[in-house]
This record gives sequence, structure tokens and C-alpha cells, in this order.
Amino acid sequence: MALREGDLVVIWIDPRRVYLARVEGGKKLETDKGFINLGDLIGKEYGDVVKISKGLAFVMRPSLDYIYAGLHRPSQVLYPKDIGYMIFKSGISPGDIVVEAGTGSGFLTISLAHFLGDRGRVITYDVREDMQEKARKNVNFLGYSDRVEFKIGDVREKIEERDVNAVFLDMPDPWLAVNNAYKALKPSGVLVVFVPTTNQIEKTYFSMKEIGYANVEVVELILREYQVKENATRPRSIGVAHTGYIITGRKSIKGSSEIT
Amino acid sequence: MALREGDLVVIWIDPRRVYLARVEGGKKLETDKGFINLGDLIGKEYGDVVKISKGLAFVMRPSLDYIYAGLHRPSQVLYPKDIGYMIFKSGISPGDIVVEAGTGSGFLTISLAHFLGDRGRVITYDVREDMQEKARKNVNFLGYSDRVEFKIGDVREKIEERDVNAVFLDMPDPWLAVNNAYKALKPSGVLVVFVPTTNQIEKTYFSMKEIGYANVEVVELILREYQVKENATRPRSIGVAHTGYIITGRKSIKGSSEIT
Amino acid sequence: MALREGDLVVIWIDPRRVYLARVEGGKKLETDKGFINLGDLIGKEYGDVVKISKGLAFVMRPSLDYIYAGLHRPSQVLYPKDIGYMIFKSGISPGDIVVEAGTGSGFLTISLAHFLGDRGRVITYDVREDMQEKARKNVNFLGYSDRVEFKIGDVREKIEERDVNAVFLDMPDPWLAVNNAYKALKPSGVLVVFVPTTNQIEKTYFSMKEIGYANVEVVELILREYQVKENATRPRSIGVAHTGYIITGRKSIKGSSEIT
Amino acid sequence: MALREGDLVVIWIDPRRVYLARVEGGKKLETDKGFINLGDLIGKEYGDVVKISKGLAFVMRPSLDYIYAGLHRPSQVLYPKDIGYMIFKSGISPGDIVVEAGTGSGFLTISLAHFLGDRGRVITYDVREDMQEKARKNVNFLGYSDRVEFKIGDVREKIEERDVNAVFLDMPDPWLAVNNAYKALKPSGVLVVFVPTTNQIEKTYFSMKEIGYANVEVVELILREYQVKENATRPRSIGVAHTGYIITGRKSIKGSSEIT
Repeated sequence: MALREGDLVVIWIDPRRVYLARVEGGKKLETDKGFINLGDLIGKEYGDVVKISKGLAFVMRPSLDYIYAGLHRPSQVLYPKDIGYMIFKSGISPGDIVVEAGTGSGFLTISLAHFLGDRGRVITYDVREDMQEKARKNVNFLGYSDRVEFKIGDVREKIEERDVNAVFLDMPDPWLAVNNAYKALKPSGVLVVFVPTTNQIEKTYFSMKEIGYANVEVVELILREYQVKENATRPRSIGVAHTGYIITGRKSIKGSSEIT
Repeated sequence: MALREGDLVVIWIDPRRVYLARVEGGKKLETDKGFINLGDLIGKEYGDVVKISKGLAFVMRPSLDYIYAGLHRPSQVLYPKDIGYMIFKSGISPGDIVVEAGTGSGFLTISLAHFLGDRGRVITYDVREDMQEKARKNVNFLGYSDRVEFKIGDVREKIEERDVNAVFLDMPDPWLAVNNAYKALKPSGVLVVFVPTTNQIEKTYFSMKEIGYANVEVVELILREYQVKENATRPRSIGVAHTGYIITGRKSIKGSSEIT
Repeated sequence: MALREGDLVVIWIDPRRVYLARVEGGKKLETDKGFINLGDLIGKEYGDVVKISKGLAFVMRPSLDYIYAGLHRPSQVLYPKDIGYMIFKSGISPGDIVVEAGTGSGFLTISLAHFLGDRGRVITYDVREDMQEKARKNVNFLGYSDRVEFKIGDVREKIEERDVNAVFLDMPDPWLAVNNAYKALKPSGVLVVFVPTTNQIEKTYFSMKEIGYANVEVVELILREYQVKENATRPRSIGVAHTGYIITGRKSIKGSSEIT
Repeated sequence: MALREGDLVVIWIDPRRVYLARVEGGKKLETDKGFINLGDLIGKEYGDVVKISKGLAFVMRPSLDYIYAGLHRPSQVLYPKDIGYMIFKSGISPGDIVVEAGTGSGFLTISLAHFLGDRGRVITYDVREDMQEKARKNVNFLGYSDRVEFKIGDVREKIEERDVNAVFLDMPDPWLAVNNAYKALKPSGVLVVFVPTTNQIEKTYFSMKEIGYANVEVVELILREYQVKENATRPRSIGVAHTGYIITGRKSIKGSSEIT
């Protein structure tokens, strides 16, 4: 399947130079290793290698981890290691409806939209309109606008949806929103919370237990990257040592406080 | 939505007592905390709490992490932390086609079937027919049989499929199958390999580089569980310290050896 | 140098069967792998292998990590990984004087006595006399009684010593003792605190900053054990995932609050 | 005790600005935060705070972890977390004799000299004379020259000492020196090896088992630093993710291969 005008591509030069772009006649992608005429990609295929001034570039099919690397994004964003686990634990499947707050850079929004498929739906809340504009552009660029509904609003005050499959909270004070999340969830639906500090763990955990979530769990994932060389394989010396903690729990209809 | 004869449920008593069952008149689920008449669940709802001889049990909607906890399985099985990351990195989306080997207990098979949705397809190879029978039962029990094709065969010798979106290998000598995986993959498709030992990393990595995968990465995920008590929150003392390493790479059409 | 009546030995059968004993005619060491007549060790040497009913045992010279493994001790005890780091960071050298609280099983006491040598001195406080009796027996058994002074007392109320080189606190509420530790320390002397929970970190840290410690640092050490097999080397599957956090700081004469 | 001409001091400005210096009239210590006339320190005390152009500096008594921070050193050096554990496991006590190779920057040499005290002795081998010159300067500067003997030589070919308490190896191919280390050690003496890659683990481990070391263990230590803020305590985001693996074993007189 040859690439055509308008197709999304990832231009991959090396692990630090990953660009998300669209095939478009007359447009250029500039990098510090040289430029690519995006119109020249017409007729190429995903997987092809193209020349740039200072080497080669790989034309890849966009996928979540390249989108992660290629999105213009603010400094704080959820990492693939955390998102993978959060989605797994949330129990969601294609076609489900989920609520998320805050929108942030929109990377979790996009990941959810990706896994929910074209019959699924993400409702994403943020209190800041400017942040959502950036996320909206990212969502539109990837063609996921039909799957995502943007709302300006404070989930600590209200979540309008009911009977959703899962709620994801990545915000400074999630314990103030766990009650509204409870109301929004289907029975047996999952609340997934991400917090960076130890102090937030306890507040969130006890709010969840009090309100009626069961099976509340707290975990942390540490990712180590390995560098592989013949006879000299080892973890990389320097790396991300911490992102945050993931807290999950399930809505029980009643009496969950009696259950640990 | 009241539960009916034939519905799948998870009976959750505590983190170590999680059972996957089907609502069925005249059948019992026996546990060391007491039994439940599975017919009595008719009319209950997901999220409900029911009494058992020695306490309470929670009737939950099945989701991947409960299936993980509730499946009868052999001792070695991929962990949620690894599967979440593997699926994220694989780039798969609902409706895709993937190849997997070996089938093992079928838990990765089920996870893939879950995320690929009803239009997706998993082709799973194993050399051992007896193993696949167990996995097949698990897949059927969950209602995913339309999404999964079981094949007895050795992927080191042949993978019959072509143009698949991703290939997952969890087998003792994956380096002998990376070439067949390459042939099976679409350009830009992702190979995901899981291996438990450091020795397997190097063999797999260099085979992948040689054959023409680009962006080959090796990571390890360490999960720490936290116990939360008021004013005494800390990681659990004892835990799983190691499962394995995840290696990922992308099929490039040509010249990838020039690209790191 | 042949072993003589009264010499200390470690009888090492395997990593889980490590015994601290004394060469003594007419005495037996009983284990679930068989017994050893401790008088038969006279004339043997450190490093020798002796037969027991169900295999072999290794006669080793006592050293800290065997003492750790061989001491009769209550369940909670500092681990070698933490003690090694604590001693390194404390800046102590042979001949120094240190204060410690609480005594607990006496393993840190013994480790300090070991590294301070025969001209050094450990003053160890505990509020419980029964605990100290156990520690005192351990200290005497190892021949370190001249290096250790036991005191029944509450360091939250008073530390009598002055001008000590370092203070070690392993107690539930160390923040209540950091001021007394400050008075006991020489200028530039080091306070080393061990706490198991995240909540204790903050209380200790801010008390230390307020009182006048500089260069306050908090770390955690995660130890992973590896199992080595030919072509199958990997971290052990299950292990100790958490022991505690180590907080260190230095006494400054004044103005330290202006210094981070 | 007021500082006098010739005394060693650590000038501590912040965790990244730690300087090892000597009180000396007419000399200056220059830093990017301003300078200090080292003669002005006469009459000050350890623990004092002094003004520099752009803030304050703390005058500290030298101790191992400041020496670590303040030494001019090549990029690769053992970390405190590893040295603390290595020394603990080695079983050494004040007055012991140990062999070390290679000398490298001399930081392990200095740490060993520190813990062995003035009656102890470190014999340190390196094949490179230029490296040893640097280490020798560091050792002299700290006043430890009586405790350390420098030898130019290859421990893979010969270790001249006999009956030493412990041997420490930090070199690219330690498996070629474990036999000479065995000859140098007292029975029940400990060999401690540090290697950065997974490949070196296996070679070292199996050489040690074959030659007659018992109780061979392999561990890795991961250190996480915490940043403490009120209500926002968490591990630092970026950190050292890997240094190396520590392998330890004990010389048995015979038959150790029968013991695991």
C-alpha cells in the first residue's frame, strides 16, 4: 500500500529524533540531521528508508509509542509503562465509554481512544481551556476526533456521565473526585488514579475505601532500559527513576467497606 | 442489568481468592471460605456483595486482571505489568491481526483477543497439543473463540501468515523465530519478545538487528506493591522481584542495519 | 592455625542453614540435616569441610554477614545492604565513639563494634530491658563486650554523651530524638536514621532541617539477588522488595537552615 | 578544636559543589560560586559556615562520602552504595590485610584504608602506572600513605601476598584472577568482585565455583534518591539506574564444589 497525500507517517532517525508528520506536497520536515520533502513520500511505503542530508530516516506507520515520542507535548506526560498497565487494569475493551481528567497533553486521551476503537468514546475533562486546545489538535491530527469529547469542567464538582466502564484521574487532588467517579461508574467499573507523590497515595486510598471501592491496590512500576553490546549487556547507567504511583479500585454496590 | 443463567462472573473474596465462574442453576463454587450456589446469582448485579459461610464475596464483572487471577493456569504465565507494556508497544488496535507463540496457558492470547475486539484475530502457535487444549478451554470459557485460531506448529520452522500487524514471542529460543516473524509482519509491524534470562537478550537482539528490524529496544519492568496504612505507608516487604525482559523492534523494508 | 576450645565458628550448610557456634568438647550442634560434635572441630581449620548425617558442612570464620545469618534474632532486623551504606555514610573510622538507639536485636550494635575496632565504643540505648538482654548476650558471645555500653533509657528524653562521631537511630519516632542527637554530636558529625515507612521520612527530614543539620539526604536501597545457571542467568523471582529508607545529615554549628 | 594550617577540610556549598582542600595561608579555593581564602579557615571549626561571594559554604570534616564527592577522579568509580556493601560482605575488620586490583582512581583503596585503620594494610595492584600516580596522590593527600602499598602488576599473572583477609577485584576480566586470589586468601577469606555487565557475572561465578569458593552470591543494588517537600515527597525523577553487580565467595580448603 503506497503512501498517499494526507497519510500520517512517523519519521524515525534515532531514538531521540522521532517526528510525527503528514504526507503533503510542497511541505518540508526540518530536523538537525537534515530535511525531508514530505511530498516525496508519495508512493513510498511504511517501513521504507529514505535519505536525509546527514544519514538515513525510517518511514514508519504511526503507533502509540511513536506518537508518544513525536507529539509536541508539555514536560509532564504519562509514560508508556504506566499507560500500558493502567489500561490493562481498567478492564476496558473496544467500544467502551470512559471518563478522564485532566486532559493534560492528551496523550492518555489518545491512548484510550486508540484502544477503545471507532465504537468507543473518551470524555475528557480539564479545567484549563488552553491545555485542551493543544490536546484537541493532537487528537484531530491523529484522526481520533470522533472518539473523543472535550469538556471544560472540574471533576471535583461534577462528572455528568453515568454508567461508564472506567474513570482515569491524573490530577493533583484526585481524592476530591473519587466520589464523583463512583457515581459515574457502572457497578464493578474501575477507577484508575495516577499520582506522583507518596503523600497523595494515602489520601486517595482512604477516600476510595470510605466511598465504597473494593480491591483497592497501589503499585509503582520501575522501568529499566538495557544497552546490548556483544559480551557487554547491562542496564543503562542513567534513566528515569520515578514517574508515579498507580491506584486502582472497583465500584461495589454496597458493603464494600467490609471487604478489603 | 440483572445476571442471567450463563453469565460470566468473578467471585472476589480477597486478593488471594479470586474465582472465575458462570451463573448456573444447580452448580456450586467451593472455596476454603465457604461455597456459593451459582444459581443464586440469577437476578443479582455486577458489583453486588453476597454472603458465604465465612464472610462476604464480591460479584464482579470479569476483566483481564481478574481473569489473570482466576484462570486455572500452569505456574509460568506472563504478568499484567508485562502484558500491558507489550500490548502498548506493539502498536496494535482493534481489528488487527496478530501472531503469537507459544500459546502457553493462553493468558496473552486472551489479553490480545480482548484488546483486538470482535473484528480482530489472534493466531496462536504451540508445539504442544496438550497445552493448547487448556488454553482453548480458557478462550472458549470467556467467549473469545471466534477471535482466536489455534495452530499446532513450530514457528522456528514456519509462520504461515503474512501481513500481520504484530508478532508476540514467549518461547525459550525466540532468536530462531525472528526471521519467520519478519516474513509474517507488515512493513513497520512490531515484533515483541519476552525472555526471562539475560542470556536470551543478547541472542534475540543481535538476530533482530541482523535480519532487519529497526529501533530494537530492551527493557525490564519492576513492579512494587504498596501497603497503605494510616501513617504507615510503604512498599510490601516481599514481592515478585523478576519476571523477564521485553524486546521490541520494527520491520523495516531494507537497510535497517544502517540504522540503530 | 588449628581451631581450639572456645573458638567461634560458623557452620555453613547452605544459604538457609548458617549456624554460629563455639568449639566446645561434649557439645553438639543439632540441625535438620544432622548434628556436629563441636568438640570434633578441635584441630580443624577455618575453611575445612566436615561430614554431617545428611551431607557436608563448611567450617567458616565468623564475619558480619554470617553473624547476621546465624544470630538468634527477632523478625525485624537491619539488613546488610542498609547497614553497609549507613556505616559508609556515617563517616566513622576505627576508634570512634557512636551512639545508637534502639538496641533491638543488637545486630547494628555488633556491626558498629566490629568496624570501630578495639579502641572504638558504641553506646546503645533502648527503652526495653528485655530486648537489651538478648542483644547483650549476642555482643558477649562475639567477644565485643568491651566495645559496647548498654543503657536503658529513652533518647527522646536525653542522650547523655557529648562530642560523639555519629548517631544512629532505628526507632518508630526518630524525629523526637534528632534534637538530642544534635547535642550529642561533634560539629560535622553525622546523624543516620532508618525508617520503614514513607510517612516517617517527612517528619524526620523537616525536624532535621529545622534543628540545624545540613546536607540532609534520603535514599532507599533495593537489593536484587541473581541466580546463575549456564545460559540462564537472571534475578531471583521472589525477594525482599522493601526494608526502609535511610536519612542522613550533618551537624552544622549555625546557619545551616540557610544551606540546603 | 580550632582548625590549623595543614588540616584537611571539605568545603560544601551544595550537593553538586563539594571540595576537598587543605587549610593553607596564601592559598585560594576557586569555585563558580566564589572563592575562599584557605588561610582564613585557621581558627574556624568543623561545622562552621563561611561566606563566599555568592552565598555560604559549610566547612566540614572530611569523611568518605565527601571524599567521594570531592576527589578529582576519572569518570568511572565505585559508588558508595556498592562500596558499603562490598566492605560489609568482605568480613574485614580494623588491622586486616587486603589485596585490591585494579587501583583505578583509588577510591576503593581509600575506603579500605579508612576502615582498616592505622594497623591495617591495603596492597593495590594496577597494570597502569599513570593511573596509580593519581591514586597515590589522593591517598597521600588524605594521609593514608602508611596504610597502602602500590604495586604495578597484573593480578591475572600473580598476586604475591599470602594469607590475606580479603581480595577485591574491579577489573574487566576478574575470572582470570580468581585463582590467584584463592592462593592469596586465608582459608575462609572472602573474594569480592565488581562487574558492570551481565556477561561478566557468569564467567566470574563459574570460575569461582570451579576453583573452590563456597557460598558464591551475586547481587545488584539499586539506589533511589528521594526529594522531600511538604506534602510532596517522592523519588527523584532521574537517577543512576545501574552501576554493576557484586559477586562474593569464600575460600574453602577443599571439597567446596560439593557445596552450593
